[in-house]
Amino acid sequence: MQIDLNSDMGESFGAYTIGEDDKIIRYITSANIACGYHAGDPSVMAKTAALAKQHGVGIGAHPGYPDLAGFGRRNLQTFPGEIRNYILYQIGAMSAFAKSAGTSLQHVKPHGALYNFAAKNEEAAQEIIEAVKAFNPELILVTLSGSIFAQMATQAGLRVAQEAFPDRAYLADGQLAPRNMPGAVIHDETAVRERVVKLVKTGKLISIDGKELFLKADTLCIHGDTPGAWKLAKTIRESLEKQGITVAPLSSLPLNT
Amino acid sequence: MQIDLNSDMGESFGAYTIGEDDKIIRYITSANIACGYHAGDPSVMAKTAALAKQHGVGIGAHPGYPDLAGFGRRNLQTFPGEIRNYILYQIGAMSAFAKSAGTSLQHVKPHGALYNFAAKNEEAAQEIIEAVKAFNPELILVTLSGSIFAQMATQAGLRVAQEAFPDRAYLADGQLAPRNMPGAVIHDETAVRERVVKLVKTGKLISIDGKELFLKADTLCIHGDTPGAWKLAKTIRESLEKQGITVAPLSSLPLNT
Amino acid sequence: MQIDLNSDMGESFGAYTIGEDDKIIRYITSANIACGYHAGDPSVMAKTAALAKQHGVGIGAHPGYPDLAGFGRRNLQTFPGEIRNYILYQIGAMSAFAKSAGTSLQHVKPHGALYNFAAKNEEAAQEIIEAVKAFNPELILVTLSGSIFAQMATQAGLRVAQEAFPDRAYLADGQLAPRNMPGAVIHDETAVRERVVKLVKTGKLISIDGKELFLKADTLCIHGDTPGAWKLAKTIRESLEKQGITVAPLSSLPLNT
Amino acid sequence: MQIDLNSDMGESFGAYTIGEDDKIIRYITSANIACGYHAGDPSVMAKTAALAKQHGVGIGAHPGYPDLAGFGRRNLQTFPGEIRNYILYQIGAMSAFAKSAGTSLQHVKPHGALYNFAAKNEEAAQEIIEAVKAFNPELILVTLSGSIFAQMATQAGLRVAQEAFPDRAYLADGQLAPRNMPGAVIHDETAVRERVVKLVKTGKLISIDGKELFLKADTLCIHGDTPGAWKLAKTIRESLEKQGITVAPLSSLPLNT
Repeated sequence: MQIDLNSDMGESFGAYTIGEDDKIIRYITSANIACGYHAGDPSVMAKTAALAKQHGVGIGAHPGYPDLAGFGRRNLQTFPGEIRNYILYQIGAMSAFAKSAGTSLQHVKPHGALYNFAAKNEEAAQEIIEAVKAFNPELILVTLSGSIFAQMATQAGLRVAQEAFPDRAYLADGQLAPRNMPGAVIHDETAVRERVVKLVKTGKLISIDGKELFLKADTLCIHGDTPGAWKLAKTIRESLEKQGITVAPLSSLPLNT
Repeated sequence: MQIDLNSDMGESFGAYTIGEDDKIIRYITSANIACGYHAGDPSVMAKTAALAKQHGVGIGAHPGYPDLAGFGRRNLQTFPGEIRNYILYQIGAMSAFAKSAGTSLQHVKPHGALYNFAAKNEEAAQEIIEAVKAFNPELILVTLSGSIFAQMATQAGLRVAQEAFPDRAYLADGQLAPRNMPGAVIHDETAVRERVVKLVKTGKLISIDGKELFLKADTLCIHGDTPGAWKLAKTIRESLEKQGITVAPLSSLPLNT
Repeated sequence: MQIDLNSDMGESFGAYTIGEDDKIIRYITSANIACGYHAGDPSVMAKTAALAKQHGVGIGAHPGYPDLAGFGRRNLQTFPGEIRNYILYQIGAMSAFAKSAGTSLQHVKPHGALYNFAAKNEEAAQEIIEAVKAFNPELILVTLSGSIFAQMATQAGLRVAQEAFPDRAYLADGQLAPRNMPGAVIHDETAVRERVVKLVKTGKLISIDGKELFLKADTLCIHGDTPGAWKLAKTIRESLEKQGITVAPLSSLPLNT
Repeated sequence: MQIDLNSDMGESFGAYTIGEDDKIIRYITSANIACGYHAGDPSVMAKTAALAKQHGVGIGAHPGYPDLAGFGRRNLQTFPGEIRNYILYQIGAMSAFAKSAGTSLQHVKPHGALYNFAAKNEEAAQEIIEAVKAFNPELILVTLSGSIFAQMATQAGLRVAQEAFPDRAYLADGQLAPRNMPGAVIHDETAVRERVVKLVKTGKLISIDGKELFLKADTLCIHGDTPGAWKLAKTIRESLEKQGITVAPLSSLPLNT
């Protein structure tokens, strides 16, 4: 049994700092690095790529909407082709820093509002899939587990990593419970650890209304932008390893199984 | 005898249009495509890369300062490493669109204030050289003919294209006459044509004060951002071909000779 | 009988030019000047404000979404209070250039996607109304004629100018025909002239499906961003004046009647 | 005897936080609020203006270069008139938030690289002076004590506040010791307190090389962007008040004396 742990990184910008990248990097296996659209800048990208390389962590592009002011969390209407081109631009830029760090890009994970939109909007999903295929069809695409986006990417022949959120509650139909629903975010560390181990060992989660549901999880998202988030990463990783589960980068996992 | 003709392209942005790319593309052999920092946007980059591919024109990244408001024409202080990272970012982004157009990046030519600064500032030149080497040491770097930048890039082992400006007057020492000097820009088409042919056939130019000077020219810069610029491109190309000179992309020329 | 003619102006940005402001300014009476968010920059704002002052044209702020890449034409999700603050910011900035041109701000007209959104979304409308009241309750607010926004602004005690679009077709219920409906944009100059005169003299328009409808119009929007748009402005103004209708800035019209 | 204490505030941007504004606000009397060019955004400006109003702190515009990526700390070449227009734009925007907070703008203090450049460059100084005069000749302009900028602004008839830096060492000629000179920044709190009291009571400072120098100080700059900076503000204010010195906003001080 094995799983990848991913976290958003490289979200600082100029004089502005977000996240404790040098701490959380020790516990994760894949880094989603912001590409200068919703966060990050070229110097932060260079530094973060080097940090990931040094720790043996897989480097991913984390493209978002061009909305630094909203941190990529606001929906933005786009005209046909724009999402494809936004993704190509950011993947290309990130790949240059992976190269300059002596390695290459492992994966692509859309960020924030774009991630959520693509999970359910077929046109957006299609544009992202086209961008990844055009740039490098060997790249791994990280998608919300069970989403239409995951299905479309799989059918398109891409390597797809299905992602689960250990500290988020799920509805009985496998969708994430909306953030404004009571209990949507699980703050209790013990509960998170137990969910993670159960999910990886059995493929099962208990939904917010007590139903058992199956969820494919190739990678678990560890939030990194709150102070002390690295401690949760540490405890999740230790719990997994204590159970004999291998924590490893996406590139070494069997995907599309 | 052969020479490359290059022009800046892809400088439109959103609803804003600059240049007549679809006209000038027919007469040039290498396109310097803006990368979204001083001009251009992802959709313009995609369209321009496809246009260049369709016409057999070599695709180049045209990275500039992050200064859309100043079109990359204003000097910007940078902290150590920033130029390197700005270049890596933009080369990477442009390479994604070359790939999606079914080809690959041919060259890199810094834009505007950054081009002029790197021509004479060794630290800036060094950062650009490092970026190109880190991304792809086979890329051709276009530099001001005879500049310290050209020398440094050659010594660093890069493929270097020395660039001359047919419609600009030169000082006796081989430097470009400053734009505010009378006669610095040559508007007479016949004179430009004659200079071009003489330069390519003999390697010589007459300086603004009447001295003969030798200038290595692998590529000639054809300005494209003024209405009707394509006509000058057309007349230059025809004059060259009438003299039996081959006009061809940088990638097919012998460089560093 | 009197009416105001308004046009969007100051949409150039740095090296990028849109519109023929110095031509259209001669035929309009109120200028909606872009404020640097969706178009325009400080130097363009200064120049455009001076141009308007010189021609006796009322100066208006034309605030939009912070989306230069999309020219303010794309919907952007905003969090509560953001629209209010975006409007305050842009009105304030524009008012500084009105002052430096020796006059003061006459009106505010939201731009593009924000204009359309506020016309029907009460929360957005409310935030804009609050911003105008907080900055200067004497400012005139230009709104889509007959919209909920117009009603809310009137009830809030603002001076409200109801706006009609001479070259746009209307549905029988008084709403603008969607742009993708055949006939939605009226290209025939004679038809536009006749509609304008009829509307100002009788308050009536014929809808796209042949019904007669009443439309309050304090100001008519003359599009300025297509080449030659000033000719339509000229012909509309001449047609109105030939009928004895006074064309005058919003500040000199009786509003809220 | 009286003095103003000013601090840079409102430097957060979207999801990015800099400074502990709600702490430092209790100890200062004038706030320099970032205007969205080098830092700050409309919602941060609104919030910060309200915070200052609530604490009886004078509201100032803190305009900088349009360089969020460099936090306004990098020199940027500008074309004639651009600085004037950048200042007008930002003053105008800030004044809107002062109004919406129920008060009005007290002062203008250029930020970072622009502050330093204007202190010694007459053209930049002149453009800033013109902007302030055009917007509101009653505004107070904060300048480096003893600078050519301070002289020019005084001669132009503006209300000028001369600023000193308690935690920065000075050269014998009254200029700030460059940051890379050992001892340029004074970290010892006791030393800072003693310098402040001596300066306010006697108008004298001891330069870095031991000479006594006179320095006009209407306001002292308290740095706010390092964690815990509010403690230094607190201790400075308490030391001053213990000596019977009144700490009060610029608007209540006699200037140009």
